[in-house]
Amino acid sequence: MAGTEDLDLRRAGLAGRYLQVRALTEALAAPLSPEDQTIQTMPDVSPTKWHRGHTSWFFETFLLEPSLTGYRACHPAYAYIFNSYYEAVGARHPRAERGLVSRPGAGDVGRYRAHVDEAMDRLLGADLAADVLDLVDLGLNHEQQHQELLLMDIKHVLSKNPLRPAYRDASADAGPFQPAPTQPASAQPASAQPASGEVAKPGWIEHQGGTVEVGHAGNRFGYDNEFPRHLAHLVPFALADRTVTCGEWLAFMDDGGYARSDLWLSDGWAVVQAEHRTAPLYWSTGPDGEPDDWRVFGLGGDQPVDPTEPVCHVDYYEADAFARWSGARLPTETEWETVAAESPVDGNLLEPVPTGRDPGSPDGSAPHPVGSADGGRQLFGDVWEWTASAYSPYPGFRPAAGAVGEYNGKFMVNQYVLRGGSCATPTDHIRSTYRNFFPAGARWAFSGVRLARDL
Amino acid sequence: MAGTEDLDLRRAGLAGRYLQVRALTEALAAPLSPEDQTIQTMPDVSPTKWHRGHTSWFFETFLLEPSLTGYRACHPAYAYIFNSYYEAVGARHPRAERGLVSRPGAGDVGRYRAHVDEAMDRLLGADLAADVLDLVDLGLNHEQQHQELLLMDIKHVLSKNPLRPAYRDASADAGPFQPAPTQPASAQPASAQPASGEVAKPGWIEHQGGTVEVGHAGNRFGYDNEFPRHLAHLVPFALADRTVTCGEWLAFMDDGGYARSDLWLSDGWAVVQAEHRTAPLYWSTGPDGEPDDWRVFGLGGDQPVDPTEPVCHVDYYEADAFARWSGARLPTETEWETVAAESPVDGNLLEPVPTGRDPGSPDGSAPHPVGSADGGRQLFGDVWEWTASAYSPYPGFRPAAGAVGEYNGKFMVNQYVLRGGSCATPTDHIRSTYRNFFPAGARWAFSGVRLARDL
Amino acid sequence: MAGTEDLDLRRAGLAGRYLQVRALTEALAAPLSPEDQTIQTMPDVSPTKWHRGHTSWFFETFLLEPSLTGYRACHPAYAYIFNSYYEAVGARHPRAERGLVSRPGAGDVGRYRAHVDEAMDRLLGADLAADVLDLVDLGLNHEQQHQELLLMDIKHVLSKNPLRPAYRDASADAGPFQPAPTQPASAQPASAQPASGEVAKPGWIEHQGGTVEVGHAGNRFGYDNEFPRHLAHLVPFALADRTVTCGEWLAFMDDGGYARSDLWLSDGWAVVQAEHRTAPLYWSTGPDGEPDDWRVFGLGGDQPVDPTEPVCHVDYYEADAFARWSGARLPTETEWETVAAESPVDGNLLEPVPTGRDPGSPDGSAPHPVGSADGGRQLFGDVWEWTASAYSPYPGFRPAAGAVGEYNGKFMVNQYVLRGGSCATPTDHIRSTYRNFFPAGARWAFSGVRLARDL
Amino acid sequence: MAGTEDLDLRRAGLAGRYLQVRALTEALAAPLSPEDQTIQTMPDVSPTKWHRGHTSWFFETFLLEPSLTGYRACHPAYAYIFNSYYEAVGARHPRAERGLVSRPGAGDVGRYRAHVDEAMDRLLGADLAADVLDLVDLGLNHEQQHQELLLMDIKHVLSKNPLRPAYRDASADAGPFQPAPTQPASAQPASAQPASGEVAKPGWIEHQGGTVEVGHAGNRFGYDNEFPRHLAHLVPFALADRTVTCGEWLAFMDDGGYARSDLWLSDGWAVVQAEHRTAPLYWSTGPDGEPDDWRVFGLGGDQPVDPTEPVCHVDYYEADAFARWSGARLPTETEWETVAAESPVDGNLLEPVPTGRDPGSPDGSAPHPVGSADGGRQLFGDVWEWTASAYSPYPGFRPAAGAVGEYNGKFMVNQYVLRGGSCATPTDHIRSTYRNFFPAGARWAFSGVRLARDL
Repeated sequence: MAGTEDLDLRRAGLAGRYLQVRALTEALAAPLSPEDQTIQTMPDVSPTKWHRGHTSWFFETFLLEPSLTGYRACHPAYAYIFNSYYEAVGARHPRAERGLVSRPGAGDVGRYRAHVDEAMDRLLGADLAADVLDLVDLGLNHEQQHQELLLMDIKHVLSKNPLRPAYRDASADAGPFQPAPTQPASAQPASAQPASGEVAKPGWIEHQGGTVEVGHAGNRFGYDNEFPRHLAHLVPFALADRTVTCGEWLAFMDDGGYARSDLWLSDGWAVVQAEHRTAPLYWSTGPDGEPDDWRVFGLGGDQPVDPTEPVCHVDYYEADAFARWSGARLPTETEWETVAAESPVDGNLLEPVPTGRDPGSPDGSAPHPVGSADGGRQLFGDVWEWTASAYSPYPGFRPAAGAVGEYNGKFMVNQYVLRGGSCATPTDHIRSTYRNFFPAGARWAFSGVRLARDL
Repeated sequence: MAGTEDLDLRRAGLAGRYLQVRALTEALAAPLSPEDQTIQTMPDVSPTKWHRGHTSWFFETFLLEPSLTGYRACHPAYAYIFNSYYEAVGARHPRAERGLVSRPGAGDVGRYRAHVDEAMDRLLGADLAADVLDLVDLGLNHEQQHQELLLMDIKHVLSKNPLRPAYRDASADAGPFQPAPTQPASAQPASAQPASGEVAKPGWIEHQGGTVEVGHAGNRFGYDNEFPRHLAHLVPFALADRTVTCGEWLAFMDDGGYARSDLWLSDGWAVVQAEHRTAPLYWSTGPDGEPDDWRVFGLGGDQPVDPTEPVCHVDYYEADAFARWSGARLPTETEWETVAAESPVDGNLLEPVPTGRDPGSPDGSAPHPVGSADGGRQLFGDVWEWTASAYSPYPGFRPAAGAVGEYNGKFMVNQYVLRGGSCATPTDHIRSTYRNFFPAGARWAFSGVRLARDL
Repeated sequence: MAGTEDLDLRRAGLAGRYLQVRALTEALAAPLSPEDQTIQTMPDVSPTKWHRGHTSWFFETFLLEPSLTGYRACHPAYAYIFNSYYEAVGARHPRAERGLVSRPGAGDVGRYRAHVDEAMDRLLGADLAADVLDLVDLGLNHEQQHQELLLMDIKHVLSKNPLRPAYRDASADAGPFQPAPTQPASAQPASAQPASGEVAKPGWIEHQGGTVEVGHAGNRFGYDNEFPRHLAHLVPFALADRTVTCGEWLAFMDDGGYARSDLWLSDGWAVVQAEHRTAPLYWSTGPDGEPDDWRVFGLGGDQPVDPTEPVCHVDYYEADAFARWSGARLPTETEWETVAAESPVDGNLLEPVPTGRDPGSPDGSAPHPVGSADGGRQLFGDVWEWTASAYSPYPGFRPAAGAVGEYNGKFMVNQYVLRGGSCATPTDHIRSTYRNFFPAGARWAFSGVRLARDL
Repeated sequence: MAGTEDLDLRRAGLAGRYLQVRALTEALAAPLSPEDQTIQTMPDVSPTKWHRGHTSWFFETFLLEPSLTGYRACHPAYAYIFNSYYEAVGARHPRAERGLVSRPGAGDVGRYRAHVDEAMDRLLGADLAADVLDLVDLGLNHEQQHQELLLMDIKHVLSKNPLRPAYRDASADAGPFQPAPTQPASAQPASAQPASGEVAKPGWIEHQGGTVEVGHAGNRFGYDNEFPRHLAHLVPFALADRTVTCGEWLAFMDDGGYARSDLWLSDGWAVVQAEHRTAPLYWSTGPDGEPDDWRVFGLGGDQPVDPTEPVCHVDYYEADAFARWSGARLPTETEWETVAAESPVDGNLLEPVPTGRDPGSPDGSAPHPVGSADGGRQLFGDVWEWTASAYSPYPGFRPAAGAVGEYNGKFMVNQYVLRGGSCATPTDHIRSTYRNFFPAGARWAFSGVRLARDL
């Protein structure tokens, strides 16, 4: 049990952190026009202004309404409009229709955020109990998750615009216009440019296996899905010391990677054929489909593929097929965590807002995977790393109590675990025990590949 | 052949009309926020800012680029983004994805309109030949059609908002919030409120049949689909002297209208069952589904159903079923036109912008069908009237030359003709020979029913 | 009013005709295995054994149960299984699931037919009133319609078999095996073989227009949709004196017919693109897709396209596009009927069963359009001819009384009229006033094209 | 390495086993008419005659063509028609279209089987090498899997028949006819009959956890997915000593099991709502939907639900929701196998054909789960038991070499493991290490639930 002094310290820390986290969300939305913030391009994507409202609703619903005396909700409809998936707290607007709601507009959502922030300021000034502080901590971690989702989603939104505009540039005056191909890139020959600018082959981090202990040890914030810490048995294995690059992916494509059924899981092969896939999401060839002209759309706009960068926006099927082609396999999450537990949490992550600068990568550019510049293992940041592990409860798992118990547990089916965070993950949000998860066919996350093999 | 003097007169008239028509479009968009103007709720619906851009593209493509020396397109991508369906003038953005384009934004589109208007001002100052003036006339009529589409479409957009906001009120502070029912209204009992405020039974306008002449006589603007004027043979018939009211529709509902297969065309019955229809589009019951509490969403917001108003937003199947239930039938377009040719073009239509007032009905309210106040026949305005006639070419029909030949002819299949204009049709856009058309299952137009019968 | 003697004559005639019509159905099913008779390849297609049962159900429901004292239904479930679309006579098995019912089997259905035939024999031996005789007549015409449907449907079923077997040959030992292309024929170049074996250009049958009278005159059997006879006005026109040939269609294809949007109705162009159409239904190229190797699947198996044959299995969109490409148009049904009323009802129609021979064309081969051998106008038989006329009620149309009133009227929307019968239409079933109808996109009927033009 | 003598023994054993396994397939198909054997009710279901052909194709492709000199394929098209999913051996007919192929018919397939059996007889008479014997063993195990699939699939086929006929009774003369409900059973109130005939509460088999060894030990046949044997770590747990009964399931339903979102995984809740589920597959209420009248369709026809029987035809979502409702959880496959390794392989399994009897349960009735009659643990037979384990490769997994390497590995995604076999699993086909797998939403397998809990 924490003493009063500890609680005081924690209260003080959370109030400051609240301001910082909330400010980053607004900074991330700042370059976006009201129109940008309104659009939903697929059911998985939410509009920017919805993310801004939903994260406020979380504080309103789980903190202000139960714990701040006299709190008055900003608008009677917002509980309906901004609930995401919490069945226990009432009806909600259908997820796939978030892009059909023009009002409240971006400005109204800004007023909603201010309304919540003002009330949270009052709440955080009180002597909050530990369980309320826990919920504040959860709310801030929740908002950090949505910061990454906001970036993933607006990238998808902008990618559907025939102008292929950059995230920071809300004017329509993009560069020379080229209509986005109406045919899938598959119409293009699958050969790839000569891999100039190649990086060296990866090294291997070896582990001798045996009984290991994984899961959150409990002395800092963690999601319920990271608990309990438990034993597992590993056979000897090795992890690559960096993630797969675009140059390596071009070699896979050049070798018929998307045309050879023997490399693919059956479900993956069905997707490749149904969607006529020939490359990662956001890759396209130029207007004439020259084989040496692959381009990739990013938050900074459309650019030639850089062979030295980590490949990104591949799904589990692609990650698995690439690993098979390489004579390797994907790591399990236990393997990954065992190795990552030894590494410092450092890398190409989303920085908090520096004064007078836009948020983004350390150098101020829009978030984009760049690869490890130094000799690090790149375990944190750049791209989330698909593991071979289905998202399941740890032995002895117990969901959090109350409505927030819906946070993680009910998604533990038909998903695969990714580890390590990406260039769009806030710096102080990631750790070695962190379990992200997506369905096998999802590609719009900043997801890449690290290889593993048996020793 | 028109003399020079006639052309001068025509030039002068078109320049003034150009300004007036273009201003009405902007006035109609003025109450809408950038977010409102961005959303597309179904493939048939286009965003407001797309309508504003597309009507400008029409002038740019068919007038400015061919006929104004030195004209420079506003943006290289707009020809792609704002083409609707003209195959002959190049590739275009997919219709169903118009709502995925945040940029150009509403402000950018305003600048596009100004760019086109400035150039059109120069063009219209020149001594334009008659065929160019014809295209200006077509462009203005085209824009008037899109004024009605803009209103139909934004009504659909706002209807999907759980706040059910009124067209003119872009703030989120609507009245007491009631989430829109997630179940179709069909879950409600189909009985209806006591038809207080009933209107008198309709009278019948009789016609003795025989050989008649219909189609455009050619001395004013008309679309190609109104030509040529031609003979037809009619049997003796009568038309009701007004359209069907909401009170009559409630009686139809009360009599099991939506539950009796014998009243319906086979395709219509399939739609009723698949969509669980129990009422016209935009009708709903209150939160508790009391049988005497039908409400209707309109551009002025959600209101109780007024039994004296014309029923609106019914499709061909509903119109046909109601007519069968009434022991009557729908009129053919030849019957309708033969009667309407004798009537003045007057009614509840969309007025041009009065100074200092918003556009809309004569009294300044948002466009909404209200029914004939006086003893008129209500043939023009209020609601488009479904006819029993499939949309087909008249004998000897020839599409207009050039790309604008795609304007009408290529839609002459799988559609039914509606006549008479609605409360959202600009006053000077309608005439007795005007042929509007929609698929049998479309309900988002301002469409209603006039009965006919054999004598 | 018919005298007793007339009724006696009519009774005698119907009893004989009953046996003949019923026997033809069984003769048409005879070459088909139980497995063949079970399959449904799309919702529009019904299994052969269902057709055999449904036509018996019609007599059971509309004749035996109301009019034969003591009649006992063959099986309590058959009323549910074999009702097609008559809402008034109770629930029915969903149309799209007819192919999911293995029992009753083909043999059970044979016993059902015998049960009904035995009872009908008793009924037809009684002194039936005129209205009952009318229903017998309707039942026989109904069964003749299903004879054509049976042939259309089994052709579709067999076309989906990778063996492409012929209708009469139930063994699997077909010719050299070539898997059916899994890609649409569209993958093939759209050029066409040199039109060797061309037929002469069509002549034109001219008509000077004016007021004409069309519709059934009433002295023989006719469906309700052929009534009442009425006046119409025609402009001067001409009809081609034969239908379009495969050779002419190859020329259309060779000229980019399936690749030029300007030739197509908007809905048709959407279908061409969505289904990657490049040729009529049942046409395919050989394994290597040689441009001069178009083949067509028919009830006699897979054959090279014969340029002199009438083109068949095209839909309204294709017929309309071909006509536009030809500088012509489709005839209206009034035009067609006005010309056909002058012609003898003769042509390549489905013959009744000759002794010891299979049913089919006059020469005993499987039904297939062959074109007029002599100088006739080919108005009857070979292929149904698409008209430009939407399927609508004639002025003053009244549906038949009772449940059989659902026979025609409720389908009078979203369909187009075809005239003249085909090689699969029983010889004594067709007449100049006969109105067949299908949706614009249907191709599995034996449907072809006759051109018309204004004079 | 096996000595010659061992191989001789093995050869002799396989020849006899070949005859026995092949005969069981034919005995299972014997009660089914050609029509029954033709139908495919959903893409997952294959027609009976396809199973009979495909299992023969397996021997033809992997044994006869490579290993029997002079073997001539039965028909050139069968390799195309009867390949299931082996990409490495050529093109194949699309899975979802297996029910569109009437020819080859059931008789043709019988001749195909005889052709293959005759050749296999010659092959098995030769001195086959161990790797060829391995393939024979695989082919026989493959055919046993298809015996269960044949039963699962025909149950689904017959369930779609409004007559709800029993498997063994190919005549249409079923009992009193009641059309299958066209509305989902969900329209019925979800309350359940009083659980008369209840069974005692289950006991618990406890295990103290620790490091265990699982996977196939290698001295008998096993599929590649059962290897390699490996270590795993378990926490202390208990398994129920029997599977969940229908009576317990009725209590779950009575407690709102299908209406409480808190009991369900998010994906499961979406399925429950989309499909309006209120009970296991094949359950329905009577015509009046009385709450105490739940019935279940089985291979023996439609019967009242027996509360003492194991619940069957539930998917992973239902199994998981039931476990959560019970305060328990599903076992992992490691837990299950650790306990089952101690139990004899005995239970309600599919018996080989006794002389003069139909195959099925020990008492000759159609396969159906009945529950353990004695004090056994019911680990084998009755129903497959869903585990909480995603279907993944074991550490060090290697797929079999050659085309048969596609047998298992490529399905290791998006599926969950089931253990223990069912009443439709051949007696000598199951073992404690056997891993069956289905997607979380599949219900047409004979799948049930065993509970587990932490100690």
